[in-house]
Amino acid sequence: MKVGFVGLGAMGHAMAERLLKGGHELVVTNRTRAKADDLVAQGAVFAETPADVARQVEVVFSMLFDDASTEEAVFGEHGIATALAPGAIHACSSTLSLEQARRLRDGHAEHGQVYVSANVLGRPPAAKAGELFVVTAGADEALKRLRPLLECFGSKIFEVGQDPVQANLAKLSLNFMIYSTIEQMAEVFALNEKAGTDPHKIFEIMTGSFYNAPVHKNYGKLMVDHKYDHPGAPVTLGLKDMEMFLKAGGEHAVPLPYASVVRDRLLSAISTGDAERDFVVLLERARQDSGLK
Amino acid sequence: MKVGFVGLGAMGHAMAERLLKGGHELVVTNRTRAKADDLVAQGAVFAETPADVARQVEVVFSMLFDDASTEEAVFGEHGIATALAPGAIHACSSTLSLEQARRLRDGHAEHGQVYVSANVLGRPPAAKAGELFVVTAGADEALKRLRPLLECFGSKIFEVGQDPVQANLAKLSLNFMIYSTIEQMAEVFALNEKAGTDPHKIFEIMTGSFYNAPVHKNYGKLMVDHKYDHPGAPVTLGLKDMEMFLKAGGEHAVPLPYASVVRDRLLSAISTGDAERDFVVLLERARQDSGLK
Amino acid sequence: MKVGFVGLGAMGHAMAERLLKGGHELVVTNRTRAKADDLVAQGAVFAETPADVARQVEVVFSMLFDDASTEEAVFGEHGIATALAPGAIHACSSTLSLEQARRLRDGHAEHGQVYVSANVLGRPPAAKAGELFVVTAGADEALKRLRPLLECFGSKIFEVGQDPVQANLAKLSLNFMIYSTIEQMAEVFALNEKAGTDPHKIFEIMTGSFYNAPVHKNYGKLMVDHKYDHPGAPVTLGLKDMEMFLKAGGEHAVPLPYASVVRDRLLSAISTGDAERDFVVLLERARQDSGLK
Amino acid sequence: MKVGFVGLGAMGHAMAERLLKGGHELVVTNRTRAKADDLVAQGAVFAETPADVARQVEVVFSMLFDDASTEEAVFGEHGIATALAPGAIHACSSTLSLEQARRLRDGHAEHGQVYVSANVLGRPPAAKAGELFVVTAGADEALKRLRPLLECFGSKIFEVGQDPVQANLAKLSLNFMIYSTIEQMAEVFALNEKAGTDPHKIFEIMTGSFYNAPVHKNYGKLMVDHKYDHPGAPVTLGLKDMEMFLKAGGEHAVPLPYASVVRDRLLSAISTGDAERDFVVLLERARQDSGLK
Repeated sequence: MKVGFVGLGAMGHAMAERLLKGGHELVVTNRTRAKADDLVAQGAVFAETPADVARQVEVVFSMLFDDASTEEAVFGEHGIATALAPGAIHACSSTLSLEQARRLRDGHAEHGQVYVSANVLGRPPAAKAGELFVVTAGADEALKRLRPLLECFGSKIFEVGQDPVQANLAKLSLNFMIYSTIEQMAEVFALNEKAGTDPHKIFEIMTGSFYNAPVHKNYGKLMVDHKYDHPGAPVTLGLKDMEMFLKAGGEHAVPLPYASVVRDRLLSAISTGDAERDFVVLLERARQDSGLK
Repeated sequence: MKVGFVGLGAMGHAMAERLLKGGHELVVTNRTRAKADDLVAQGAVFAETPADVARQVEVVFSMLFDDASTEEAVFGEHGIATALAPGAIHACSSTLSLEQARRLRDGHAEHGQVYVSANVLGRPPAAKAGELFVVTAGADEALKRLRPLLECFGSKIFEVGQDPVQANLAKLSLNFMIYSTIEQMAEVFALNEKAGTDPHKIFEIMTGSFYNAPVHKNYGKLMVDHKYDHPGAPVTLGLKDMEMFLKAGGEHAVPLPYASVVRDRLLSAISTGDAERDFVVLLERARQDSGLK
Repeated sequence: MKVGFVGLGAMGHAMAERLLKGGHELVVTNRTRAKADDLVAQGAVFAETPADVARQVEVVFSMLFDDASTEEAVFGEHGIATALAPGAIHACSSTLSLEQARRLRDGHAEHGQVYVSANVLGRPPAAKAGELFVVTAGADEALKRLRPLLECFGSKIFEVGQDPVQANLAKLSLNFMIYSTIEQMAEVFALNEKAGTDPHKIFEIMTGSFYNAPVHKNYGKLMVDHKYDHPGAPVTLGLKDMEMFLKAGGEHAVPLPYASVVRDRLLSAISTGDAERDFVVLLERARQDSGLK
Repeated sequence: MKVGFVGLGAMGHAMAERLLKGGHELVVTNRTRAKADDLVAQGAVFAETPADVARQVEVVFSMLFDDASTEEAVFGEHGIATALAPGAIHACSSTLSLEQARRLRDGHAEHGQVYVSANVLGRPPAAKAGELFVVTAGADEALKRLRPLLECFGSKIFEVGQDPVQANLAKLSLNFMIYSTIEQMAEVFALNEKAGTDPHKIFEIMTGSFYNAPVHKNYGKLMVDHKYDHPGAPVTLGLKDMEMFLKAGGEHAVPLPYASVVRDRLLSAISTGDAERDFVVLLERARQDSGLK
């Protein structure tokens, strides 16, 4: 199939490459053209704008930083929506607010285009290995057409519902589970440390017993090792996620007390100068509140 | 070795049986004598009181309901401490407050006896299979002597430190991780349900991706199935645990905002008439706050 | 002085009338023209649009419902900014987000116009009696010119700073104090009621001792009387205020745990069907969580 | 009437002196005898123990530091309950946990004695001036007999109910209102300070408008002036109060989210080294979380 890809950051690039290796014709674009060079060397075509990509394909993926960049890439002057054929699909993998997801869904519908949310869980190396988890939602027919493409980079495809926005909420929810697990562990590590027990020991018990999910192992390890400085993702990104999750709660009138606690921790981390450190640094807020160090 | 066991509830019974099957001579006692019958049939000796048990053994285990029952069994008129030989070990597996654990440690020390905390993670079937996780703390020498016994019922033995109280805090911490994970999932399930997504779908994504620890799978399943009525453990037990954890935080001057949120949910569950239902019922508090059902 | 007034809701109307009675020439506009009839009968001139008002005056006040209506009235096609003379003042009394206040400040500056925040505390009857509290911020010179006008409806004028946005934050903060005091009293009333004490009795002690401010007396009375149905202001307005306050906290990276608790209560009130009742109804959330009624 | 007084701290002394000046015969005791000297000089009789006081009087007041000291003074070897005549009254003014208050009520009943809670609001200078607020509860007949005595030091007497424990809960509730108002103001002061506004200015607006109760004026002033070092009452006392209030919530299964936030702030203040400073120092926790100073 002829497929487009807009946004070649670390994750987008890896996903695009998997599509190419899956035997699909690929048209890509990116603000910084150099990021596309190796894909072009492997046979991809570079287009100048999202519209130029969209014009040539049946399905266009996008993977961008946030609401604003997605808005521009879709509804801007040279945006996807200006050129995508009626009936063609835009599958967006960006982590978006529900409001933005609704705008995409409704805006594409006005153009007779099809919008699908295709959020991904995992980091770029998993994408490269074709082992992302894909959380997708949209019209049945579109999901069916999309599936072989999603399987290029995803080892599991979860279909959440027929409204694309459902996948966006699922994605925000799962991200909340990360931050919330970090806060949970932070309280435990801080208290045990203050009581004289090395948090590494507690981490070993957790992950050696019933708290042995990747969310515990990956973030817990960074926490007990105080590895805050080569961020997978910074505090500011965590805050962006939590603001979107809380906003989703607001729209549906659902109180989210844990999410508010996390938000406060992240704000405090920013105030303390840790904005650009890995978000596991919120352990330091729990430690500071406990008078540690 | 000649070993004693005080408290033959479901968990204590299973642990005692493993010790017996491990080839140890066993002396047991329990308030309700009938609970010991099958152990006696297998060769255990029944003694009338904890003191009568303690008098005959080098190591006595106890597994009782709470601080008060442990206090009585140890320092009461016919308590363990009145009869245990100097240098002999009391290994207590009950979930206790730090204050109570300190009383045991210090009280036994006054009698020249050795106190070790030997908390266990897991449910009775795991005990029967010898697959508990044991979290233990105490003097090195005592832990060394104890290890072959712990290995009768535990597949992993974690040594937390030399002060027995450290194991009690670790145990309270790990229990907090359960309740806190339930609250986390409750917020996620309530919000997605209100937004039109079946929580079973979210549960499937969680446990099919990075949130696949037993703590997610076991409790999450009960939650999405609304299985509240054959409690593994009731709301009241959850509250007891959380009060002890918060008290530990108080003693060490460590703020625990997540723990306070959980406490409030549990209190609200009691007020709503769910005191004796499984503590996963706190999902219903999140659902009620969201106007669901 | 020739003064304009845009927005003749209950509060705006009362303020405008005071300006008129203070001897100023008044030009007014309002979406619903009838609201201006009695002012016109007293000598005010009606203009069709905010621009038509602004064109004729040295100082124009606005008192509108929210960010969006203010944006339209100021920067819309017939907005104040299109017609106000360079050096003339727009004094805005609406409760706005900091972001909107900044837009007003910066947008007027681009037109060479002067923007001042002139927030008011109190209800329409206080405005009618000239007894509002005015919280104002802006350039010194502008505040000086404005003062005689503010004194028409305000018995006290508080100058917060030279950046107009400071007054907006002060206003949001003082509104937060209302909701926060309500939550505080809700917890107290619920607990005492559950323990068998009539909340009226607690209210009497509060207001007869050290908790006798209007914020206690006015809202506390509505609470203990369960007077939820002729709202001074509904839950939805409370939520709007709290969202703006929390957003202000986010912008300045200041955690606001109490504000988050209030937000959750208000969301829960909406979910329970109380969106249009007076915001003191959040007492019912505390009562429900306590199993009362 | 012949009246006893046990506990001559600053508050107890002032109350006792008012009883003496009210024309009553007074028998007093105190651990440090010197504190009674001036009262004896004015005609009071010193007795060696609480029992020696109780033996001689119809009504004995007590004003002690906490549960433990009250327990000792009432049910200890030389305690009030050992000597008070049947039908005589013990009026206790200490701030107690509900559990302790129930013990007093029930223990006195077993001796045929009458127990009344007579809590006071205000500080020692108010006591000296006879201007305390008294919050009392107990049997009608006892309250009637007591009233002339309470009027010696109280300008207002509030009768809460027939169960003495109701007054203790009211007292804990009103103390919670103090801490909760401080937290409320702390969030407001921190946010406005971070946004560039002097908190003194916000304090002036608060107390010049609708937030002008003593609870705002007294504590708010200490806060904006950062007067933390000549404590009216230290952080540790605040924590004691909040623990008792939260425990009361626990007993009645009433969630108290604001109280939990305050508890966390106080714990954090202790961890930061502020245990003995005035509890208004919790402003510094809000400031630290905001990166101020």
